Amino acid sequence: MRARELASEFPTVGLETDALVAARLLADQNLPGLIVVDEHGLPDTILPGTQVLRFALPRYVQDDPKLAAVVDEVTADAFCQALAGTPVRDLLPTKARELPVADGGDTVLEIAALMARARSPVVAVVEHRRLLGAVTLDALLDRILPR
Amino acid sequence: MRARELASEFPTVGLETDALVAARLLADQNLPGLIVVDEHGLPDTILPGTQVLRFALPRYVQDDPKLAAVVDEVTADAFCQALAGTPVRDLLPTKARELPVADGGDTVLEIAALMARARSPVVAVVEHRRLLGAVTLDALLDRILPR
Repeated sequence: MRARELASEFPTVGLETDALVAARLLADQNLPGLIVVDEHGLPDTILPGTQVLRFALPRYVQDDPKLAAVVDEVTADAFCQALAGTPVRDLLPTKARELPVADGGDTVLEIAALMARARSPVVAVVEHRRLLGAVTLDALLDRILPR
Repeated sequence: MRARELASEFPTVGLETDALVAARLLADQNLPGLIVVDEHGLPDTILPGTQVLRFALPRYVQDDPKLAAVVDEVTADAFCQALAGTPVRDLLPTKARELPVADGGDTVLEIAALMARARSPVVAVVEHRRLLGAVTLDALLDRILPR
């Protein structure tokens, strides 16, 4: 089995997409992560859901998670409102991460190794400079676990 | 909103559970991770799905992911068969990770900070030495995103 057979359609967002719209996409479609594409439709960034959440956190909590404890409940409940009006571009990590992108010809073992190393439950599949779709951890396990 | 209000029932596995049964639970119930409980029913380990996958990989691929490329397709397709007959205990990381466990009184901001730091889309909620359930990233976003 090769990545191109496992890839299925996966929603993408652009660098200028409103971050709140992106977070809602994650929640409403129960996605394990977000694929951010550049102007050519190719993956610019792929963020596991937990890292999307990270960028919604106030800067002081990102720097020191213990500070989350000093925020009162009402303020805490509203922390995601900061996302509205902010483009996805502004939330991306400044340090480059390894992009979890597989080639269409990669085997399931290569996809699994990539997911594990990048700790990303979603891997984009690109072949001939075209985004074919994505493989999620769930889809991978469904296909490879012995019955 | 506090962790105890957000926690919902979440399947657990024991240290002696067969690793293949655990991986199937992950796949069949579309869980974002696994909660491994000790003999008292309290969280011993909480593994994001990508890390469960990691422990299914052959040791040489865990050590050097590039080696995944030299394995032929038929062997690659079958890599999960190594899980059968192995207890979950044998797959756990030897290095202790921070356990993504929240207290029942934690706010959504504390849960979000914990998920982001531990890169775990599932956080167990414990109160008075009892496992109340878990909060998933998806459930958290569903509750806190402004409409």
